[in-house]
Amino acid sequence: MWATHALPRLFLTKFDPMIPDFSKGLDHASGKLLPAIAQDAVSGRVLMFAWMNQEAYAETLATGRAVYYSRSRGKLWRKGEQSGHQQKVLEMRVDCDADAILLLIEQTGAACHEGFESCFFRKVLADGEAAVVDERLVDPQSVYGQ
Amino acid sequence: MWATHALPRLFLTKFDPMIPDFSKGLDHASGKLLPAIAQDAVSGRVLMFAWMNQEAYAETLATGRAVYYSRSRGKLWRKGEQSGHQQKVLEMRVDCDADAILLLIEQTGAACHEGFESCFFRKVLADGEAAVVDERLVDPQSVYGQ
Repeated sequence: MWATHALPRLFLTKFDPMIPDFSKGLDHASGKLLPAIAQDAVSGRVLMFAWMNQEAYAETLATGRAVYYSRSRGKLWRKGEQSGHQQKVLEMRVDCDADAILLLIEQTGAACHEGFESCFFRKVLADGEAAVVDERLVDPQSVYGQ
Repeated sequence: MWATHALPRLFLTKFDPMIPDFSKGLDHASGKLLPAIAQDAVSGRVLMFAWMNQEAYAETLATGRAVYYSRSRGKLWRKGEQSGHQQKVLEMRVDCDADAILLLIEQTGAACHEGFESCFFRKVLADGEAAVVDERLVDPQSVYGQ
C-alpha cells in the first residue's frame, strides 16, 4: 500500500494509516471538524477553505463530490447543491499530522458564494488594508437569488 | 484603494476593509486563531496548513516572513527559526468571510517537518487508506536533530 518505489528505505516512516484523524479536530456539536482546503486541480488556485466532519469526509470519499460541514447552517454542505457550482474531487491529500485535508478538485462555476473563482479574491496591501483584485465570474444574485 | 479597474460598478461590494477578522477565529488561550494556508508562489503547491493569531499575522505583515501560532508549543512559531526553512511571504490573501488567510510564499528547504516539500505528502486512495506519494527532500534528523 505504500508507494515505496520513490522512498529510500531509510526514510520510510513506521506504518501508520494516516487517514484523517478527526479526534484531533475542532470541537463542534456535530462532532470534530478538520480543516479542508479546496484547490483547483488544473490551475493550482486555492479556491476555498472549509470544514469537514467525519460524515462529510466519508460522503466526499464515497461520492467523489466535495461535501463540507457548514458551521453557520449546522449541517452537511454538499457544495453546489443550491448554486450548481459543485466540486468534483480528483484527489485528496492528508497532511503530516493527519489533521488537515487538501482536495484537488474540478470546480463547476465559481467556488465563492460571492461569485468569484476563489474565495481568496482580496489581497492584503503593504499598509495592511485589503483590496479586491480579482474579477467576478458570476453575479451571485443570479445563482443564489435574493 | 479598491482595484476598481476590473470590477463593473454593479458588482462592487459595499466598503469593508476585510482585513482578517480575528474575532471570528478559533478560541484559544493566546487569543483567537484563524486558519492560514501556505502555498508555493511559483509551483502553486499547497505546502502547509497552520494557525495565526493577531500577533503572528501582524509580525508576518511587518517582516515579510511567515509567522504562525503553534498550538502544541503554545507560542509564536517563526517558521524556519530552528530548521532554517523559512518562508518569504510574497503575497497574502484574505477570504470572502475574512476568516481564512492564504500566504503565497517562497519556501527555503522543505515546508514539512518530516522533510517533505509539502505537508500534504499523503494521498488518500480509493479504499480510504492513505499512502506516501512524494519523495522526501531532506532527512528531518539532519535538520532538527534527535
